Amino acid sequence: MNQYQFSEQDFSYMTRAIELAKQGRFTTTPNPNVGCVLVKNDVIVGEGFHQIAGQGHAEVNALAMAGSQAFGATAYVTLEPCSHFGRTPPCAEGLKAAGVVKVIAAMVDPNPQVGGKGLAILADAGIEVASGLLEQQARLLNRGFLKRMEQGMPFITCKMAASLDGKTALKNGQSKWITGPKARQDVQLQRAQSCAILSGADTVLVDNAKLNVRVDELPEPLPTQLPVRQPVRIIIDSQNRLTPELALFSITSEVIILTTELDKSQQWPHYVSHIVVPEKNNKVDLVAAMKLLAQQQFNHIWLEAGATLAGQMTECNLIDEYIVYLAPKLLGNDGKCLLNFTELTSMQDVVNLSINECVCIGDDIRITATPRKASSKPNN
Amino acid sequence: MNQYQFSEQDFSYMTRAIELAKQGRFTTTPNPNVGCVLVKNDVIVGEGFHQIAGQGHAEVNALAMAGSQAFGATAYVTLEPCSHFGRTPPCAEGLKAAGVVKVIAAMVDPNPQVGGKGLAILADAGIEVASGLLEQQARLLNRGFLKRMEQGMPFITCKMAASLDGKTALKNGQSKWITGPKARQDVQLQRAQSCAILSGADTVLVDNAKLNVRVDELPEPLPTQLPVRQPVRIIIDSQNRLTPELALFSITSEVIILTTELDKSQQWPHYVSHIVVPEKNNKVDLVAAMKLLAQQQFNHIWLEAGATLAGQMTECNLIDEYIVYLAPKLLGNDGKCLLNFTELTSMQDVVNLSINECVCIGDDIRITATPRKASSKPNN
Repeated sequence: MNQYQFSEQDFSYMTRAIELAKQGRFTTTPNPNVGCVLVKNDVIVGEGFHQIAGQGHAEVNALAMAGSQAFGATAYVTLEPCSHFGRTPPCAEGLKAAGVVKVIAAMVDPNPQVGGKGLAILADAGIEVASGLLEQQARLLNRGFLKRMEQGMPFITCKMAASLDGKTALKNGQSKWITGPKARQDVQLQRAQSCAILSGADTVLVDNAKLNVRVDELPEPLPTQLPVRQPVRIIIDSQNRLTPELALFSITSEVIILTTELDKSQQWPHYVSHIVVPEKNNKVDLVAAMKLLAQQQFNHIWLEAGATLAGQMTECNLIDEYIVYLAPKLLGNDGKCLLNFTELTSMQDVVNLSINECVCIGDDIRITATPRKASSKPNN
Repeated sequence: MNQYQFSEQDFSYMTRAIELAKQGRFTTTPNPNVGCVLVKNDVIVGEGFHQIAGQGHAEVNALAMAGSQAFGATAYVTLEPCSHFGRTPPCAEGLKAAGVVKVIAAMVDPNPQVGGKGLAILADAGIEVASGLLEQQARLLNRGFLKRMEQGMPFITCKMAASLDGKTALKNGQSKWITGPKARQDVQLQRAQSCAILSGADTVLVDNAKLNVRVDELPEPLPTQLPVRQPVRIIIDSQNRLTPELALFSITSEVIILTTELDKSQQWPHYVSHIVVPEKNNKVDLVAAMKLLAQQQFNHIWLEAGATLAGQMTECNLIDEYIVYLAPKLLGNDGKCLLNFTELTSMQDVVNLSINECVCIGDDIRITATPRKASSKPNN
């Protein structure tokens, strides 16, 4: 299987399959984004992508488009076809039944329920199989799903926004607006692509933040034709300080409150649930909380919190990616800082990142950076 | 003169003249960078640039190369040819004597000693003249010279370096190294292109900084064949705290100390001079000091100071450009800030900049930004 020599056509069709997969990035949670292209006599006879969990997988949608043309075709799929009955029947069986003669996957599915079994079913049926075509790009489609499958933890992006001198607000708390409208629009787009938005009670209480996707602020045209779902809002509230009157709860979409002890004195709307998490130093144990969120099938979490929670998440090595919006403004030393750490006393101890991307968004700059060391071993 | 229609060839030759001018950017101070191309029958017959003040101007060097070929040629020059006797004879006369038939200047010289007189001399002699070709690019060559001529103030670039969360050092002062070797090399190159490096006594005392160009750290190959000169080091020392034993004075190149009152108790090396500047709140009056430095013919000053001086220069609207090196590191809230301001209480009062450029330098990011409002009216 590893001996397979990919051709220029193979790269081209898999690139198309990856493009298709991306169209599902607002909607497939907790499932991965997957695209599929069916090619016969060098013509695309079917293509599809996974749209919404519980509905057709990419292969099913591509086979439906191809109809009888699938017979004798080659399937390009960004993730190994599934081998198990979930909410839909196994795609490996579907491809086999349709008479596909070759299946090229960008990567093997790390889901332990699949893990090579999908390709094995196909190979056993005499279908030529190969995998590893554009695997790096395919992995980028599903960083959250892959981390959850491979490490049992969610992929966490920490969003920060500050002036060029690293201040998030004036000393008196004023911060409207540090970044410009294009950057704030970009934040809405990033939120919309996440499975959940994670924050702390402080942010909800101080800013009266709603933490939803403001659909009317999304850039037009949106790169999906499917309705944007609201990510689950997850709030860490160790001391049960939240109350149902807050603006957060005026949006009727799911909220999960992580706490160390249930407070039964409040009446909550039906879309609000509580999860009791082990405690550490009188607060929610962040590592335990993130493990728990992975068990609840959250793949990619967008952390948008104050300096204290963002600092603690950083100190626990829980952050996989930082997205920092820097506005061309100077606020001076009295302004508020981005991250509260335990005081560092040696340059050896600073958090080292690598810059992945640095682009202008309107008048602001967006910097994407990842920790130098893998976050596979959270500090507990 | 304004009716002149520039051709594609004109743009091409002026672009070459601008390239030539740039080669002088380490050495021409206090003179402007100027390049000149002489073209006859669509062939470059001579080219030159101004190398060192007191030596040949660009036109003189180009004419020397062209010899008798200059007769009947067109001259492309990035700045109007001079009309006055300085340390060298007027270039307008030289072009006239050589038999040049057309002179195209990128811009009129704002030097009140020239100011159109150079082109007038040529026009009076029957030579066809035009100006304004690639003027915007030509102005970039000499931002310092132009600001000094037009406003009587130096052009000041404020260099800052910090972690991604805007910290310049740990609370205990440790900062070696926040930025990487490529960024530090870039700083040496920027220093080498400046007429002077400006700092405060604090930086000299706390860091024992030498503030010279470390020639062995400059990138290779250097974009000049001329020996790199050491910019004048200018230190603001309102309270006469500097002493001759400091490392700064171990480098035998010019130092100017700006103070409010002469302290005659110290013996200084011959390359150190003092300038008494009017005082404001018991400190050197920064606006008066910068005016004075312009009178001393400093065009472009590289400010590399601590948060206090950089903050005060910002508050006085004296900064024309910020170059911020951001390292992919996080230091946390206890770290030291970039700029000390008087506390701001309204978002209306923040300093607004525009991003000009954002590039990766090694592992770090270099952001160039300019104040939104012209710094033509310093706050006094």
